[in-house]
Amino acid sequence: MKINQFAYVPTTHDQIVTELTDIRFLTARTSKIADPVMLFRQFLLKFYLEKQGLSTRVQKVSNLMATPELNAYEYTTSQESVTKLAFYNVGLQLLGFEVGLDFTLDEPLATMKKLKLPIADVPTTLDRNHLIDAWYKLLNTRTKFGQTLIDFLAGQGYYHQFNDDDSLKRPLIFNGKSQAVFDTDKLIHEVVYVEAPLDNDHDGKRDLLKAEITRPAETNNGLKVPVVFTASPYDQGTNDKQADALTHKVNKPLTRKVPNDLTYDDVKAPAAPTNLPNPRSAKGTTEVAEETFVKTWTYSLNDYFLARGFAVVISSGVGTKDSDGVRTTGTRDETISATSIIEWLHGDRQAFTNRHDQVAISAWWSNGNVGMTGRSYLGTLSTAAAMTGVSGLKTAIVEAGISNYYDYYRENGLVVAPGGFQGEDTDVLGELTFSREQSAADYLKIKDTWLEQLKKLTSGQDRKSGSYNSFWDARNLLKDVNIKADMLLIHGLNDWNVKLSHVYNLRNRLKKEAITQKLILHQGQHEYLNNFRSVDYTDIVNLWLTNKLLAVQNDANKVIPDVLVQDNAAAETWTTYKDWGTDATVKKISLADDRFTDLNENTSFTDQLPDDLFKHYTTNTDKWQHDLFTKDHSKMDKHCIKLVSEPLSQDIIVDGQAKISLRGSTSANVGLLSVALVDYGKAKRLTAVPQVLAPQQILTSYHWRKDDLKEFLPTKKASAFKKFTDSHMNMQNRTNNYKADELQPNQRYTFDMAFQPTFWRLLAGHQLGIVIYATDMDYTIRGNQDITYTIDLGASSIEIPVLK
Amino acid sequence: MKINQFAYVPTTHDQIVTELTDIRFLTARTSKIADPVMLFRQFLLKFYLEKQGLSTRVQKVSNLMATPELNAYEYTTSQESVTKLAFYNVGLQLLGFEVGLDFTLDEPLATMKKLKLPIADVPTTLDRNHLIDAWYKLLNTRTKFGQTLIDFLAGQGYYHQFNDDDSLKRPLIFNGKSQAVFDTDKLIHEVVYVEAPLDNDHDGKRDLLKAEITRPAETNNGLKVPVVFTASPYDQGTNDKQADALTHKVNKPLTRKVPNDLTYDDVKAPAAPTNLPNPRSAKGTTEVAEETFVKTWTYSLNDYFLARGFAVVISSGVGTKDSDGVRTTGTRDETISATSIIEWLHGDRQAFTNRHDQVAISAWWSNGNVGMTGRSYLGTLSTAAAMTGVSGLKTAIVEAGISNYYDYYRENGLVVAPGGFQGEDTDVLGELTFSREQSAADYLKIKDTWLEQLKKLTSGQDRKSGSYNSFWDARNLLKDVNIKADMLLIHGLNDWNVKLSHVYNLRNRLKKEAITQKLILHQGQHEYLNNFRSVDYTDIVNLWLTNKLLAVQNDANKVIPDVLVQDNAAAETWTTYKDWGTDATVKKISLADDRFTDLNENTSFTDQLPDDLFKHYTTNTDKWQHDLFTKDHSKMDKHCIKLVSEPLSQDIIVDGQAKISLRGSTSANVGLLSVALVDYGKAKRLTAVPQVLAPQQILTSYHWRKDDLKEFLPTKKASAFKKFTDSHMNMQNRTNNYKADELQPNQRYTFDMAFQPTFWRLLAGHQLGIVIYATDMDYTIRGNQDITYTIDLGASSIEIPVLK
Repeated sequence: MKINQFAYVPTTHDQIVTELTDIRFLTARTSKIADPVMLFRQFLLKFYLEKQGLSTRVQKVSNLMATPELNAYEYTTSQESVTKLAFYNVGLQLLGFEVGLDFTLDEPLATMKKLKLPIADVPTTLDRNHLIDAWYKLLNTRTKFGQTLIDFLAGQGYYHQFNDDDSLKRPLIFNGKSQAVFDTDKLIHEVVYVEAPLDNDHDGKRDLLKAEITRPAETNNGLKVPVVFTASPYDQGTNDKQADALTHKVNKPLTRKVPNDLTYDDVKAPAAPTNLPNPRSAKGTTEVAEETFVKTWTYSLNDYFLARGFAVVISSGVGTKDSDGVRTTGTRDETISATSIIEWLHGDRQAFTNRHDQVAISAWWSNGNVGMTGRSYLGTLSTAAAMTGVSGLKTAIVEAGISNYYDYYRENGLVVAPGGFQGEDTDVLGELTFSREQSAADYLKIKDTWLEQLKKLTSGQDRKSGSYNSFWDARNLLKDVNIKADMLLIHGLNDWNVKLSHVYNLRNRLKKEAITQKLILHQGQHEYLNNFRSVDYTDIVNLWLTNKLLAVQNDANKVIPDVLVQDNAAAETWTTYKDWGTDATVKKISLADDRFTDLNENTSFTDQLPDDLFKHYTTNTDKWQHDLFTKDHSKMDKHCIKLVSEPLSQDIIVDGQAKISLRGSTSANVGLLSVALVDYGKAKRLTAVPQVLAPQQILTSYHWRKDDLKEFLPTKKASAFKKFTDSHMNMQNRTNNYKADELQPNQRYTFDMAFQPTFWRLLAGHQLGIVIYATDMDYTIRGNQDITYTIDLGASSIEIPVLK
Repeated sequence: MKINQFAYVPTTHDQIVTELTDIRFLTARTSKIADPVMLFRQFLLKFYLEKQGLSTRVQKVSNLMATPELNAYEYTTSQESVTKLAFYNVGLQLLGFEVGLDFTLDEPLATMKKLKLPIADVPTTLDRNHLIDAWYKLLNTRTKFGQTLIDFLAGQGYYHQFNDDDSLKRPLIFNGKSQAVFDTDKLIHEVVYVEAPLDNDHDGKRDLLKAEITRPAETNNGLKVPVVFTASPYDQGTNDKQADALTHKVNKPLTRKVPNDLTYDDVKAPAAPTNLPNPRSAKGTTEVAEETFVKTWTYSLNDYFLARGFAVVISSGVGTKDSDGVRTTGTRDETISATSIIEWLHGDRQAFTNRHDQVAISAWWSNGNVGMTGRSYLGTLSTAAAMTGVSGLKTAIVEAGISNYYDYYRENGLVVAPGGFQGEDTDVLGELTFSREQSAADYLKIKDTWLEQLKKLTSGQDRKSGSYNSFWDARNLLKDVNIKADMLLIHGLNDWNVKLSHVYNLRNRLKKEAITQKLILHQGQHEYLNNFRSVDYTDIVNLWLTNKLLAVQNDANKVIPDVLVQDNAAAETWTTYKDWGTDATVKKISLADDRFTDLNENTSFTDQLPDDLFKHYTTNTDKWQHDLFTKDHSKMDKHCIKLVSEPLSQDIIVDGQAKISLRGSTSANVGLLSVALVDYGKAKRLTAVPQVLAPQQILTSYHWRKDDLKEFLPTKKASAFKKFTDSHMNMQNRTNNYKADELQPNQRYTFDMAFQPTFWRLLAGHQLGIVIYATDMDYTIRGNQDITYTIDLGASSIEIPVLK
């Protein structure tokens, strides 16, 4: 077990005294206690909530051991000083660690170092000021169960004690982070319909978009609060079965493209139409919404902020249930769906209480500062909104967001699926999220328009060619950048759904802009990160949003690391870096270098498999992947080129984007190339899907949302290898992804392919594998065509960015 | 998808009018509306909550289609009558079914029949009374997401609208079930310490047991409420690592027992000691508790009842954190831990506000009626408490409870583990639940006593012999029966942890008693059942507890089926029966009958495996089980006798307890026999672990506990076979489980073995398999001894109880 903290703000003693006074550990009474032993006793008694009887609290303090002989109550009633040892013996127990199981009473500090818990810089015997400093740091230390101690205490009802006390600050800031002092029993849930500057369904009226607001009751007494906004096309429901039915068949041959000489201007998206109906006139105004709502699924990070003085707004956008318009899968219309809500929250756009009466309602309770959250499509919309420079959006927290739809559904002129979703495309995703279909009467009105739109998606995405075109250009979020928001980017190094190129390209593009950006790379695939034991992600986000949306000067930009990476080869290990992909040394090596062994002595391979084996692999792609990558003999031996390096003499980190240049040919007039980089070496690798360590263990506030505590843990059995990056290319797109090149059978060309960016530690003793193949069962279309590929290894080379 | 309902209470029209008035669908205003069309409109508008604006509600009604042309608002403002078709078109949408996806507007009734949804007995055109009856039935019909429509509405805030209206009945009964009219935001959480008539740690003082109470705020205004009580030894924490460390090694040889002539009197448990310290005297009394608590994990069924006017009490018993005593794993001390709490709730025992001050507090808010809930150990304690006849306990709902600890850890003189827990025993479970160890200072006080007790468990359980003895006799809950509580028993037909003999023997024993008992057998292993789509388990429990604890005459005993069984061969199919295991015809067949094929022509087999194979199987028991049962050649061919019947000409149900009589010998002076009955036939069988259909979809009340909707669904790939029952025996225990018989090498004896009771449908075309083997990797100790077993098939026979 390792607990890592990156959101602790160094704080002066004077400031500590102020803050402990604010949260009521220091009071008129305790301020008068000069004796550190007595003050320690008072802190401990307060820890067990003053609303409980004194006997109860004494009993609870008495359950803690301070030394091997004395319990904490005995200690604080019999000793003359507080030792650092006794303080942390008690402290570790408060943090949930068990004597005997997790640590021993004779060396708490050794355990704390091992667990990576922060230790206050105090001498072996604590005076009053030391005690105050150490107590402050302890309250800001993470427990065994993934929360800071003060957040744990909030869950136990610490702040709830002061619910009726108007003199408690609200919001209340402690160590730079907003505290859970808002009563979640009294949250207000209301719906408004924001009028977007869109007429996406061409009915001559601007589109009304439903927004669901949850805000603290304190706003009704004049408090203005910031907003955590999630744009989620999934939120109003999804059409799973209908989308499944639309999923494309992928067992299809690769077909030849007629060579062309297209330039970017030929595939550039046309400017958006500017004709727009006039806004509706308001027939009245009100401050009181008339519709309410109840949620089933909610994002626990958003819920966490509801207890901390933020409102949460969720909106699904055009084409979703109770809103106007149709889905467009990634265009400007969906971006404007998100920015319209922000504009309303910032006072720049009108909304109505319902879809009919045109009674306007403003976001009078909003302080005008908005931060976006959410993963995947949700994160994508955060990026898209941020790129517009919309006023009010101070930050976007982008978890596994798409930055270019072409890179999500295509790669180098090939149809390449998001991992796990073979056959999905923009039309499938459009159908999935077109939740207006779930309101029977509403659907009847829009059905024809929608079916027309669906046809446009299907033809525009052009699965036949796989090339970049104006359809995709309209879905490239990196094209038009006018950003003002600071960005917190989070991505999984094992995310094969939204692959690493999205965050890599976004981050590199943002480097040109005058904003602050931070990056967290974890070992998950497509996961949320706010409930892990080994990293204080939630605290980082709290520090970030308290800074960006509450405008508290908490040094967030300085305290939060620029790049934080979870190690793939050691569990629960997080390291800070200055950058990603720029500090490495690029090593260029010929594929014929004798440090590589060509396992099956192949320099050419046929893609076609026996029918039954092909069929078996299409439904058992795990088995296919195993046979493709294994160093043992397998049925894929003749269908790939497998190069394996010598065992590494020391650890290396592949940092950024590796590249490969292949000189080779196809036996047909079509062809595709796939290359994977493989980490060979027996190891208990981390699971990319987190495991639940303790269900419902995280209390985000008092009698409020619970969450499971999770972690990426090593598998119980060792595995022999793991692919850590790959690349795919249509051989006709060796120039770029829109120009179709000539491809003559058996003629040699050079194919320069970039891998998915990564941050991967290869351990000493492991071997680097380069596996060259064609059809990728998990990602590409699968024609099982009779094509032979030949590679001139001597004329081919790989470039690896290595960080030592 | 199939929705099954067993808790609907047939209700007269007059009663329907009363109840719809009680829940405010019929009001002073709507009572005056004579026109069924207008009344239908009012019902629909009320469905969308009166606290919302009329425009909003009209919009929502307008989103529903009543006919292929008219939406529900248009329909109710333009038509002259309500047709049954239109009613159910709208009704199905209210229930969450989608037009187009789940049903079509021209035949809603056909869909309802297919889904097994109840249809009101009304003509094709509804008059006012028909409409009222149909609306009532619709509100009591289950939605697509596993709740009745009225419960769904409660989750949306329907009853919350009346929170400030004192004239609403509380509790409020609708169709025999208590409604979610209590404000869960205002629940009171408090702790008391009940003084049990025990001095289990021999410190000269009666043991104080912590009890955690959650009760509706209305109790503070004089409302007396019934109690749902869960006795959970796990609730205060578990010592997982310490228990793991105690787990016994099972790769050990079977050793010979010295033959004896023990009778039951020799192994009978001694009477409990009667010396007991006096109760503490109360130094004062109060009605106000002084300690509070916060939960992480809670049981969603209990939470459901908190919104419905029940208090929930949880207590962990002797040896758990904040209580006195030590764990005893299944003895009377743990039973008394549970009954003490019930006695306090019934006014028959004292409790204190804390462990020190002796200030007494009564359960003044309790109506004295208690029902117990919980699964596994928790269900076991419910059974144990019920068997004492303790006053106040009106019912126990026993989910997968143990009825005899010997049958949990042993079988016929053999150490046989609970499935998934090889090497566990009473000492391991004792250590696991001894949560006092988690309070460092408290543990220091009790450590020596506990280590002494742990030794007693280890020696008493006697893993060496595996025989029944006085230790186990003290843990047989079926021995002393003085029951007054009605019993609702629930068990999984695939539960290999707490096996089927527990519920079968309990139920048969209870048949002799003057109580009502009901049984539900589902297809899970060790699962809770309160959040499934295909069965209204939660509603059944509501009907049951409303009857038993609120004393409402709701015909629960009549309405709830005596035996309800989920089919193993058809998904989401539940059938009612009169009894279990008595209506079948017993078919006795010789094992040499030519309808059986002896697959490997074995009549004897060696148990010993090659070392590497043995080692492989011990860590891959799935693989072992596959090789043992497969009809294909495998490495187990020589290590078992595999008899397979002819394909069945029709479906048969094995109903109850099959038996086998084996005539055979061992080559050594020790031996064990295992027999499994296997269902052979390619089929997509149900998963014994439920799948989540919709996370967080169930709202148990307004802004209260959410739960995942689950179901046992068929696997995606077909499997070739499945074991459905088994039996194990130490050959020295052929007489009974305490007498050790002589066992001569190569001498023939008869071994009469009873299988785990079951209720299993074998489909026509499937084959019944009888697999005879020795070491069971999953359950028995594994000595890999060089022993050959020989069976005289002609002198052996099987008896199968068959229900056609």
